[in-house]
Amino acid sequence: MSPLIVPTLADIHTAATRIAPYAHRTPVLRSRGVDALVGAELFFKCENFQRVGAFKFRGACNAVWALDDAVAQRGVVTHSSGNHGAALALAASTRGIKAHVIVPEGAVKSKLAAIENYGAILHRCAATIAAREEAAERVRHETGATLVHPYTDPHVIAGQGTATLELLNEITELDALIAPLGGGGLIGGSAIAAKSQFPTMQIFAAEPEGAADGFASLQRGERVTDIVPNTICDGLRGTIGAINLHLLQLYGVDVLLVSDSETIAAMRLIWDRMKIVVEASCATVLAALIKNRERFQGQRIGLIISGGNVDLSDLPW
Amino acid sequence: MSPLIVPTLADIHTAATRIAPYAHRTPVLRSRGVDALVGAELFFKCENFQRVGAFKFRGACNAVWALDDAVAQRGVVTHSSGNHGAALALAASTRGIKAHVIVPEGAVKSKLAAIENYGAILHRCAATIAAREEAAERVRHETGATLVHPYTDPHVIAGQGTATLELLNEITELDALIAPLGGGGLIGGSAIAAKSQFPTMQIFAAEPEGAADGFASLQRGERVTDIVPNTICDGLRGTIGAINLHLLQLYGVDVLLVSDSETIAAMRLIWDRMKIVVEASCATVLAALIKNRERFQGQRIGLIISGGNVDLSDLPW
Repeated sequence: MSPLIVPTLADIHTAATRIAPYAHRTPVLRSRGVDALVGAELFFKCENFQRVGAFKFRGACNAVWALDDAVAQRGVVTHSSGNHGAALALAASTRGIKAHVIVPEGAVKSKLAAIENYGAILHRCAATIAAREEAAERVRHETGATLVHPYTDPHVIAGQGTATLELLNEITELDALIAPLGGGGLIGGSAIAAKSQFPTMQIFAAEPEGAADGFASLQRGERVTDIVPNTICDGLRGTIGAINLHLLQLYGVDVLLVSDSETIAAMRLIWDRMKIVVEASCATVLAALIKNRERFQGQRIGLIISGGNVDLSDLPW
Repeated sequence: MSPLIVPTLADIHTAATRIAPYAHRTPVLRSRGVDALVGAELFFKCENFQRVGAFKFRGACNAVWALDDAVAQRGVVTHSSGNHGAALALAASTRGIKAHVIVPEGAVKSKLAAIENYGAILHRCAATIAAREEAAERVRHETGATLVHPYTDPHVIAGQGTATLELLNEITELDALIAPLGGGGLIGGSAIAAKSQFPTMQIFAAEPEGAADGFASLQRGERVTDIVPNTICDGLRGTIGAINLHLLQLYGVDVLLVSDSETIAAMRLIWDRMKIVVEASCATVLAALIKNRERFQGQRIGLIISGGNVDLSDLPW
């Protein structure tokens, strides 16, 4: 790992160049119907079309390709059975190295199958944070693999910022940008990319009421880590990281809370009107916009649609 | 109406210019996963992103804007409670004229609401073809409105051909093109656009086994009109028109039949892998490809994804 701690715009530019051969440049979609409903001009950066079906591939790919050859040969490891686990597995395969993924008992089988399909080695552990971290530490010790944390790793944060970099290269004069907030990797990278170039742009994070540790942490001025998440947004249950909270504070990010029912309504609206499959986690951004529509009247707003991995047999409506 | 009977490539070019201010130029999407599964290079022309959620807007828009001013002022009429009804309603509104839509008793409420939302005047009738045609004739007589048939109208056929025109302007060296077959407006326009420019390209129509009037008509060499459709593909239940059958014969279109269960599996595959919402009717094209994959090995194939209007509360899996 480089000594980089808080990534900068330059790191995001480096990440963009580094991942360009492997990641998709995703489209920016619009919808007259949704614009009319909200009373604003919306630009949806569609990371549901990214490889692995989520923005997570950007960060994982940047982290994997940032490693020195000798270090890379020992592989990478993470403890995420969600999109980051799949993303790291695919990223490792693009470099021909091993990915170890720690998966807790009780993890969704279809997700594990996906991670295995991308070529990762699964390591089972008990379903506690302590067990996960212990297992990751053991793999790291035994194999020499580098830990790639899903949202505190600076290369991951820089990689996630490349989605906003692309959006802002394509769409000019945005008044605001909204991204979902889970652990804070995406919103952190997005804020760096946007505010470093356009200091007056307002950055908003959409967070589920049932996992409002980001909101509470900003209010208290320090990390709140004792919230037990209760939300259908399975991508947003992580607890905000220290570097991620720092980035929210640094860039004056405003957190907008939404209920699950608001998120589900927004998710269905996107499917119905825009004909794209998006997961609940990213529908929070449109839910937050609709809930606060007076504040955004007439503005040009970028929305990061973070992913499209849903169980089609178990839709939330 | 102009005296045009069988549309030509020139008519499709005219249509493209005519509808350009109103219709979307839809994206061509690809999927590594689906390519690998089929063993071919697939290019999906995504008309689910078209206005009204279906290619139907192209034909309706061309028909509406092809009218002389004096004729246009008396409005347009059709008997389709599906995508064509909604498309004609929106097309008429772009010209500021009235659209009359004949709707049979028992039509799906949500579809009628959509048609009304686009500003059409609904006229109810009994659920028989005779009652529909009689009602349309009455409206035509009383208002002077022009009938715009959903798939036999030459302007409609030319308009539908613009989707393939765009696809072939963007993607070169296709070996084959596949579009769904209902009444034959889309496949007719597609065949004209493709074969007039690339005579060696093979054109395929995907048709449900439960509505195989197109297949039977080609076999018999004349229209087969006594098939009672039984398929989940609600957009493909129409009976092939005379001009449409003529176009299939003229351009040597090969009809590939698929079962509903093959269509549903292909539909789900598209949602899962490509993260787009498509209706069953257009999943027939991928189902036909998968069913006949040996025939298409290594080829470059264009697929017309015709629409994305589905009831999200009643998915077929």
